[in-house]
Amino acid sequence: MSRGFHVAVVGATGAVGQEMLQVLQRRRFPVRELTLLASARSAGKTLRFGEESLPVRELKADSFKGVEVALFSAGGGRSREFAPAAVKAGAVVVDNSSAYRMDPEVPLVVPEINPEAVRTHKGIIANPNCSTIAMVVPLYPLHKAFGVKRVVVATYQAASGAGAAAMEELLAETRATLENKPFTRAIFPQQYAFNLFPHNSPLDDTGYCEEEIKMVRETRKIIGDESLRVTATCVRVPVLRAHSEALNIEFARDVSPEQAYEVLRQAPGLEVHEDRAQNRWATPVDGSGKDPVLVGRIRRDLSQDNTLDLWLVSDQLLKGAALNAVQIAELL
Amino acid sequence: MSRGFHVAVVGATGAVGQEMLQVLQRRRFPVRELTLLASARSAGKTLRFGEESLPVRELKADSFKGVEVALFSAGGGRSREFAPAAVKAGAVVVDNSSAYRMDPEVPLVVPEINPEAVRTHKGIIANPNCSTIAMVVPLYPLHKAFGVKRVVVATYQAASGAGAAAMEELLAETRATLENKPFTRAIFPQQYAFNLFPHNSPLDDTGYCEEEIKMVRETRKIIGDESLRVTATCVRVPVLRAHSEALNIEFARDVSPEQAYEVLRQAPGLEVHEDRAQNRWATPVDGSGKDPVLVGRIRRDLSQDNTLDLWLVSDQLLKGAALNAVQIAELL
Repeated sequence: MSRGFHVAVVGATGAVGQEMLQVLQRRRFPVRELTLLASARSAGKTLRFGEESLPVRELKADSFKGVEVALFSAGGGRSREFAPAAVKAGAVVVDNSSAYRMDPEVPLVVPEINPEAVRTHKGIIANPNCSTIAMVVPLYPLHKAFGVKRVVVATYQAASGAGAAAMEELLAETRATLENKPFTRAIFPQQYAFNLFPHNSPLDDTGYCEEEIKMVRETRKIIGDESLRVTATCVRVPVLRAHSEALNIEFARDVSPEQAYEVLRQAPGLEVHEDRAQNRWATPVDGSGKDPVLVGRIRRDLSQDNTLDLWLVSDQLLKGAALNAVQIAELL
Repeated sequence: MSRGFHVAVVGATGAVGQEMLQVLQRRRFPVRELTLLASARSAGKTLRFGEESLPVRELKADSFKGVEVALFSAGGGRSREFAPAAVKAGAVVVDNSSAYRMDPEVPLVVPEINPEAVRTHKGIIANPNCSTIAMVVPLYPLHKAFGVKRVVVATYQAASGAGAAAMEELLAETRATLENKPFTRAIFPQQYAFNLFPHNSPLDDTGYCEEEIKMVRETRKIIGDESLRVTATCVRVPVLRAHSEALNIEFARDVSPEQAYEVLRQAPGLEVHEDRAQNRWATPVDGSGKDPVLVGRIRRDLSQDNTLDLWLVSDQLLKGAALNAVQIAELL
């Protein structure tokens, strides 16, 4: 028997699932055997993994025999339904959905921040929300160095966060709009071509949407500091695959932009990406296909002491999802 | 001689100039005579004004004979060069550029907020920056009612802010991207189709760009309160003509969302536009072609007392430019 793990990818035909296959390959994750699982609708397709063509099988409770690592990215409902079966079969589940993230029994992990948390797992490890990951990668080293008190974040989120079909819908609706043709949307509730809208996840009674609450709560859990104050406004913009965020960060003490840059230049998982002389900063196109979170445009907030503004871009499918999940699997 | 004014529109062929003609017509501004001025390149074209077809003439220092109201929207350079000539010829200039906005001798006016300021003019009245107008229309009544201490704003700005050619460039680049064809940009420094970028106006040594500094300074001047603290992050998104903004507003005291809605429902120049039950909020498409600033999504900030989040959309060409300029002219 060759070395390595029997890995299952659940939701293998989705936008994140496809990236997972590429990331496993690119990072030479020790895969001994690979099981591709998806809904009945996608079963029967074949997907490439390096030189091989592998069949996609229907996800069922008995799909996990012999599986050691199961990467789930098929939505919260599938995770709740099938992750327990995978754990029962002996697999460790890395779950990209929101199903288990706030479960106190389940570690919520960004490997650059809290790798030690994986040790406490009881079968399931949760992969955080994509907008949250993008924010915490630079926030954590700044918090460690200077103490963050409060963050006001506004997001500019890409179609990829809603899946491969959403990316296709944005392209198709844009084409129809340019040709002045009618278009029937299947995924988004409002026009998306040349338009934007506050994130359409359900509101709770605070008036925050689910996506925003994730950024508030998951950030605290990952960084391990319940006193960290975060408010978020999440907005879907007509961009294909990388999220951008404008952060306003209040610190416990005075921090100069130079000090913040110095900390970020040495922190893992991110890259200072800017050309100040040319007034150029990271854009979603720059961030697409890149592993690190791109950060820059750090300046002192003119309206308040001890506060900096920061701009970031992160590939939602990579660090926001597939890459982080595979990095978690690498910790095992 | 019939009643009404001899009006000149400077920059008549531009995106804002064209809207000015429509707004003058729609609001039945008492136009006795209309002079259309533009660069030599556009001179000789004709434009419709109601039933009439009018020639566009080249803008020169002697273009203003007999003109009583001159609406300038041809960039700061043209305003600095030609507004003094218009004033000398006896016209009152309403200037849509940034050339005179922060001049202490020049009133900076949003008619819903500081109409009385026009009385102090010495020939020139400045029309504020479009992102600033959108923000101050709801901010001012909230400030009057509850006292605003600090605003953190992130913008989602449309192509129209950079003119008609910029809107065309967005459409053309999007078409080329969908067809996988090369595209040479003339206006924007970076890919704009399915992409976004921090506003490309020049940086000053604080690291803020000009657009952001306008939102900080002009807001104070219009509202007439130098203690008002504002920080802004301005971002250009691939949307055609309405700007959106996410505001985080800290008040001097506790304000409930209900109290804020009540004040905004009675304030001029804006409209509460939302369907909370359906999780629908104003989008740029909703705001395009509409006079009022659309506001909503008001919620208590979970991270800080006395603080609300608010979402707004404003047609950059109307309230952000042409409509506000014509409203100023109406005050005269």
